[in-house]
Amino acid sequence: MKTISVGLIGFGTVGSGLAEVLLSQQERLEQRSGLSIRLAKVADINMTELPPQFSGTVLTNDAANLINDPEIDIVVELIGGIQPAKTFVMDAIAAGKHVVTANKALLSQEGKDIFAAAAASGVEVGFEASVGGGIPVIKSLKEGLVANKILSIMGIMNGTANYILTRMTDEGIDFADVLKDAQELGFAEADPTYDVEGIDTAHKLAILMTMAYGMNITHNDIVTEGISQVEPVDIEFAREFGCRIKLLAISRNHGEHVEARVHPTMVPESHLLASINGAYNAIHFTGDTVGNVLLYGPGAGKMPTGSAVAADVMDIARDISCGSVGRVPSLSYLPKEIQDIPITPMEELSCPWYFRISARDEPGVLAAIAGILSKHGISIESVIQKGRQESGPVSIVISTHIARESSVLAALAEIDILEVVSSPTVKIRMLDETAAAID
Amino acid sequence: MKTISVGLIGFGTVGSGLAEVLLSQQERLEQRSGLSIRLAKVADINMTELPPQFSGTVLTNDAANLINDPEIDIVVELIGGIQPAKTFVMDAIAAGKHVVTANKALLSQEGKDIFAAAAASGVEVGFEASVGGGIPVIKSLKEGLVANKILSIMGIMNGTANYILTRMTDEGIDFADVLKDAQELGFAEADPTYDVEGIDTAHKLAILMTMAYGMNITHNDIVTEGISQVEPVDIEFAREFGCRIKLLAISRNHGEHVEARVHPTMVPESHLLASINGAYNAIHFTGDTVGNVLLYGPGAGKMPTGSAVAADVMDIARDISCGSVGRVPSLSYLPKEIQDIPITPMEELSCPWYFRISARDEPGVLAAIAGILSKHGISIESVIQKGRQESGPVSIVISTHIARESSVLAALAEIDILEVVSSPTVKIRMLDETAAAID
Repeated sequence: MKTISVGLIGFGTVGSGLAEVLLSQQERLEQRSGLSIRLAKVADINMTELPPQFSGTVLTNDAANLINDPEIDIVVELIGGIQPAKTFVMDAIAAGKHVVTANKALLSQEGKDIFAAAAASGVEVGFEASVGGGIPVIKSLKEGLVANKILSIMGIMNGTANYILTRMTDEGIDFADVLKDAQELGFAEADPTYDVEGIDTAHKLAILMTMAYGMNITHNDIVTEGISQVEPVDIEFAREFGCRIKLLAISRNHGEHVEARVHPTMVPESHLLASINGAYNAIHFTGDTVGNVLLYGPGAGKMPTGSAVAADVMDIARDISCGSVGRVPSLSYLPKEIQDIPITPMEELSCPWYFRISARDEPGVLAAIAGILSKHGISIESVIQKGRQESGPVSIVISTHIARESSVLAALAEIDILEVVSSPTVKIRMLDETAAAID
Repeated sequence: MKTISVGLIGFGTVGSGLAEVLLSQQERLEQRSGLSIRLAKVADINMTELPPQFSGTVLTNDAANLINDPEIDIVVELIGGIQPAKTFVMDAIAAGKHVVTANKALLSQEGKDIFAAAAASGVEVGFEASVGGGIPVIKSLKEGLVANKILSIMGIMNGTANYILTRMTDEGIDFADVLKDAQELGFAEADPTYDVEGIDTAHKLAILMTMAYGMNITHNDIVTEGISQVEPVDIEFAREFGCRIKLLAISRNHGEHVEARVHPTMVPESHLLASINGAYNAIHFTGDTVGNVLLYGPGAGKMPTGSAVAADVMDIARDISCGSVGRVPSLSYLPKEIQDIPITPMEELSCPWYFRISARDEPGVLAAIAGILSKHGISIESVIQKGRQESGPVSIVISTHIARESSVLAALAEIDILEVVSSPTVKIRMLDETAAAID
């Protein structure tokens, strides 16, 4: 039986998960491919020995030792972050190794260099685990939906943020309280910025957009708002409108330009994305031939991520064995087909909106607000007024029909300087259920 | 650019859908593969000419004419049914052609012959469209989840049955009335037996089990109950228990034996499968490394099915072009690894249950029923008594904790001969949410 040798850089949570998967599934992988996948070498700067079940694997503290080992076929990078991960990946490619990584930050920021180098060296780069954890979303997009123009991508792509929003929704408690609890339970990191501010989600959306549309994009091109400003009162009002608040990545394909945004979104309960709870992820594609497809599963975790990395290793191993390296382009489109496509300016975005205006409870206030919205062409769908009391502000909560972002910003600027308005209006975009019908 | 030539047998709804997809996506497929996919020939006994946009395609009334054409690389069978489809597929394989089919009846009944012939001839058989319409479920199972022992399969795999149950649930109307309406709207066929009696679902479960477990199975091995006996009153009671009734295919892997069953099932509303409505399909896998994954999308239809068939064509085209035919075994496991695994006898199945007992409203009835259940080791979770009236039977509705099928049958046999019980007890299996934790 032909043996494919894997070198693993980083034996942390995900790295040790991969090692366990390759060991526990070794026989199954042989039965499914006729190939023996061998974890030949591990590089980790913090270790002096590997757990005893990996006695057949060599440990080194120097990644170069692994990258330059002629026996290694595939280098798996699971240390995360930009450096030294990029150096290791580029060195491995230069040494003619195929690469597998789960590093969405690296790919969404430095992908262009990495994929260009891989194409020049004739090696493959697998990154199934970089989006949606254990969900086979990259393979589905590149191969299963190959005969589709992707019209939209919408997804819950960060388990930590979704876990926090789910608990805020179910228990009616503050963001800060849930975050603290999540950190204690290990569902959120000590520095949760990437997860709760939508940056991690933007990394993943950039990767999906690259493949879906065949375009150059980095996460810096994506307008990103997180969930740290979401308040329980807005979650409660969302419920009254039949919605749940979710941190969504959204991209719609307008052909000449494409939307790219990450923000808290009010999702109608009838939409499957509203039912995705806890640390799970779900990615929804609309394709011009297939229609709507949703893929759901664990968005992170040692073993689910190990499952996805192992699938990439197996894919590359099959190509090595069959002599079919490069059979499917790493980014779904051939390198020469990857284009620059403009991102839709955020001001031009149109969607239904939720506003929560804090105002003194005086006659004429609603009329004044409605007048300003009307002047800017914003049509009200429904209004709820809550919190009536002798003194102090009330909440005037409004859902609108589809309105342009630029009109909304202009209208709210006028509303927020009304003398009766006591604090800046909270605005949350709503999912446009007609979004599948693009342009 | 290398050209791959496709011959299509059957230009009905799905066949013409594939033709449209290959035409509309031709440029995209080239950009993604560097290959030109050409629909060279169509065989259809009912046509005299093809629509004008297919002017580059030759029409024949004789499938042999296409099968034996040396220029054809891939034969796509989209006529459905067992014969002459099997003959065409076997002839194509014998002629050294790769085959793509959406024919679940054929594969679940005659798959053993077909895959053996394909292995002997060194050709590929693609069948993504046979399960879950446009959802990339076959590819996900074979490749994306390759590093998993599949512990369970649960799914809504028939859009017609799910459409009927959804409308019965939303509108409170009878099966027969919805069916009639569905037939008029084109959601159900004139003879709906395969769809509503669970046979089509069993075909699909057999295909998934073959690949998930690497086993020989036909749909005849699967205990199958349809939805024609489901009554609105049971849907209403299900709601009171926080459940929805769905036609599920269920298989759990016990290692030495595997469950295989299709039946109406009460699904807790908290489970995503309860939220799958209308003609959509969803397939839920539990893998030992990945955990829970669900794939959702259109389960049928001209263009979604075309999307899946085109993905298979592209996959095979890449293998032809790269010289990597056979890169992934058709059935996920190498042919020599496919085993006979016993099906769990239905009597040994354990799950929670729903019973609706029609009985006279007399003192002591519930005590008698509870006594019989208790004697058979069946533990009651909750009881609802409805329909109290001066004369005539009441409904005693019971949900149970997990109980063995054999115990349930024995207990109900005793209950149904009680003098106060007026008609046979309705029993519906409930989804066991602990099912992911197998044995």
